[in-house]
Amino acid sequence: MSKFLQRGLQLAGLGGAMGVGWLLGNNGSHKSSILSSFPVLETVSAAAIQGSIMNMEVADIVPPPAPNAPRISQIMRFGFPGLTNVRALEDYVISYDTRNRLPYWVCEHLSAANINKNPEVDRSKCTFHEDLSIHEFFRSENSDYKGSGFDRGHMAAAGNHGTSLETCQQTFLLSNMAPQVGKGFNRDKWNELEKYCRKKARQYENVYLCTGPLYLPRREDDGKLYVKYQVIGQNHVAVPTHFFKVMVCEAKTGELELESFVLPNVDIDNGIPLSTFYVSTDVIERASGLLFFDKINKKKFRQINGKTIGWF
Amino acid sequence: MSKFLQRGLQLAGLGGAMGVGWLLGNNGSHKSSILSSFPVLETVSAAAIQGSIMNMEVADIVPPPAPNAPRISQIMRFGFPGLTNVRALEDYVISYDTRNRLPYWVCEHLSAANINKNPEVDRSKCTFHEDLSIHEFFRSENSDYKGSGFDRGHMAAAGNHGTSLETCQQTFLLSNMAPQVGKGFNRDKWNELEKYCRKKARQYENVYLCTGPLYLPRREDDGKLYVKYQVIGQNHVAVPTHFFKVMVCEAKTGELELESFVLPNVDIDNGIPLSTFYVSTDVIERASGLLFFDKINKKKFRQINGKTIGWF
Repeated sequence: MSKFLQRGLQLAGLGGAMGVGWLLGNNGSHKSSILSSFPVLETVSAAAIQGSIMNMEVADIVPPPAPNAPRISQIMRFGFPGLTNVRALEDYVISYDTRNRLPYWVCEHLSAANINKNPEVDRSKCTFHEDLSIHEFFRSENSDYKGSGFDRGHMAAAGNHGTSLETCQQTFLLSNMAPQVGKGFNRDKWNELEKYCRKKARQYENVYLCTGPLYLPRREDDGKLYVKYQVIGQNHVAVPTHFFKVMVCEAKTGELELESFVLPNVDIDNGIPLSTFYVSTDVIERASGLLFFDKINKKKFRQINGKTIGWF
Repeated sequence: MSKFLQRGLQLAGLGGAMGVGWLLGNNGSHKSSILSSFPVLETVSAAAIQGSIMNMEVADIVPPPAPNAPRISQIMRFGFPGLTNVRALEDYVISYDTRNRLPYWVCEHLSAANINKNPEVDRSKCTFHEDLSIHEFFRSENSDYKGSGFDRGHMAAAGNHGTSLETCQQTFLLSNMAPQVGKGFNRDKWNELEKYCRKKARQYENVYLCTGPLYLPRREDDGKLYVKYQVIGQNHVAVPTHFFKVMVCEAKTGELELESFVLPNVDIDNGIPLSTFYVSTDVIERASGLLFFDKINKKKFRQINGKTIGWF
């Protein structure tokens, strides 16, 4: 097993009821000697690695932007996971993968105020539409999804952006979509995760989300690891094997909590609790090529994946 | 067959001696109705699509940079294929894919002068070494390749940068490597392509190269298209299914020629001529998510893939 998936397995406690095949491939028995040299922290930020020890000791929480600051300052307060093809919409920010025709990541900021659904916004008036800001070679189209058997799954959830028809409609850009299994995933377990995030937003001062696709390898009978995923439609839109969601919740006291999920893009049994999908953030970072919330000194987290951290 | 692979097949004249399975997957019979709306030009530049008709008519050739300009100005004279994690080395420029632990692309500029091997440079003194400029989560290591059965294949070829030990050694950065089949590919047909480019550099005023990996889908027995590739080592370095090389040659008269190749990462029979691997540039653009030499008005090419263009 590779060092980063094994690390994730250890920390996430996966491998029980669900089996680890979804996340790790068939064969999970190969041990890595590099593991022993791994950092003890659940996530290691770019700042922690590239910066000095002083950084680790004294860095404070990045203050929230001024109320009249551009929306992107609030959404991206804790750093950009990557800088490829970044575009700020009214209420979310996207980094677009021109090779796979879907996002690398989308970032959102939720609060009790901004997830309050405006009763005048009728989601049924929103329509999936092409993103004309993307070069036509790299754009996905509705026809790519038609008959594919996959839903056009929102990365920035429509339900997070219901304050105006404009913000809701922008989540229906096809650049914000990824092919998701409908029954048991997009309409069920993934939807449950999105609702869980909104519930957090009602309880906390600020919630920051980063969401995106993963293409995880599996070990095949020849003992080798392979990444395999379907592509759909004329534009070869990639069907991710998994999706991640990393969430930072800021309490009214300023205390921070981190939760990271990886869900397989399959029909998931409704009875499996969301906590089954907790994964150490660095596993997602290694698999996605991104760094999440790297302006936060990871020592500042009071809780990670539901567990209070020892040094508090 | 998808529109972009079919388009490539038509233009490249593939499908003869080699069979098209390497490039296109098993089933090449499914026709696309969108093809009829495709542009007639072999490649469509970002400028052509996003700019005005005036652009198409009057744009002139970007002049070469001044002799004392930074090297990157010469290498990137005709545009950046993408802007992700770009780094300029002494004699080549790389865009790095943190998810797959190898380049998205490398760009090079060759001329008769700069490919002259300095007899004092001993390539055997060059050693494959980690690229410490890349975050440790996303870096490939020599151990990833060891025992994998794949060569550490240079994207910017060592033989193109032999003017000093420093420039040669920089091509041995592991960030410049991709896992390549050794016998029949890295040491043979791919090497032949690299030598062909240097031969061109001796004949022309300037040669501009862009080289990188591809992960092309194949149609499986269920009728669906899948991308499948191995990953090697602890860091899950992706093994590309194919590699591309796009070359612009500028004659002493200023006239431009374009050649685009896609080679499968397999043991290729030595008797197959390089011209078999000609592919329309837009096929590579769609598959890679990149745009090549988009500062060149594509109407300016006197020759494309060895064929003189009609409008001259």
